[in-house]
Amino acid sequence: MRLDHIGIAVADLKAADELIARLLGRAPYKQEVVAEQSVITSFFDAGAQDAKLELVAPEGARGPIQKYLDKRGPGIHHLAFEVDDIRAEMARLAADGFQLLQEEPSLGADNKLVCFLHPKSTGGVLVEICQTRKS
Amino acid sequence: MRLDHIGIAVADLKAADELIARLLGRAPYKQEVVAEQSVITSFFDAGAQDAKLELVAPEGARGPIQKYLDKRGPGIHHLAFEVDDIRAEMARLAADGFQLLQEEPSLGADNKLVCFLHPKSTGGVLVEICQTRKS
Repeated sequence: MRLDHIGIAVADLKAADELIARLLGRAPYKQEVVAEQSVITSFFDAGAQDAKLELVAPEGARGPIQKYLDKRGPGIHHLAFEVDDIRAEMARLAADGFQLLQEEPSLGADNKLVCFLHPKSTGGVLVEICQTRKS
Repeated sequence: MRLDHIGIAVADLKAADELIARLLGRAPYKQEVVAEQSVITSFFDAGAQDAKLELVAPEGARGPIQKYLDKRGPGIHHLAFEVDDIRAEMARLAADGFQLLQEEPSLGADNKLVCFLHPKSTGGVLVEICQTRKS
């Protein structure tokens, strides 16, 4: 089984296309109506080379994942995108109207600095940007 | 921006590890506690080579995406995994206790045959398996 795509439900395709293009820094490469499913779809290259699934369970103090589980139950929680320079990307996104959930990167799994964006500013998707820490 | 990972919130990491290993046919390759976030994480290779983001908007008749938007609002909807033989994979998954939402593959975007699995059987994640149609 090879990850093929991540489906994101949107109400207004034109507005979502524009938003995700601003987030990723690239335009969708095609649109397609799927009459059988009563949908219109739009595709973006996710830029994945060796993407992972990360299962995240509460451990220790009551944190955001426990709160999420209490409210929504288990399921897909966030999408994470690797960037070369997290502080430069945070500045670019903030200047473009995306709402950062933190002013400074924090330490995530996998030896990465991470920063989350508020789903209200990203079409309902909790987005993490991350950068591998230089040793 | 390059897709790095998809985060999935789970309540019980051991049970979820076992479930996702059965789904993907491979074991997690590492576990890691992130004390700063009060979580323990587990990583699976997603097998992505050229993964996409697929935005999905309602079009035409009232279908499942419109119903999803009405109930949950916009956001991450499903994860899709490409397989070589969708009917063989459907049989394998059904025999292993995963609940298929359809008995026959249907026609999806991108010239694919698709089949969805009930999130109740996959830890809260709506999973699509898909196979490119042979011409």
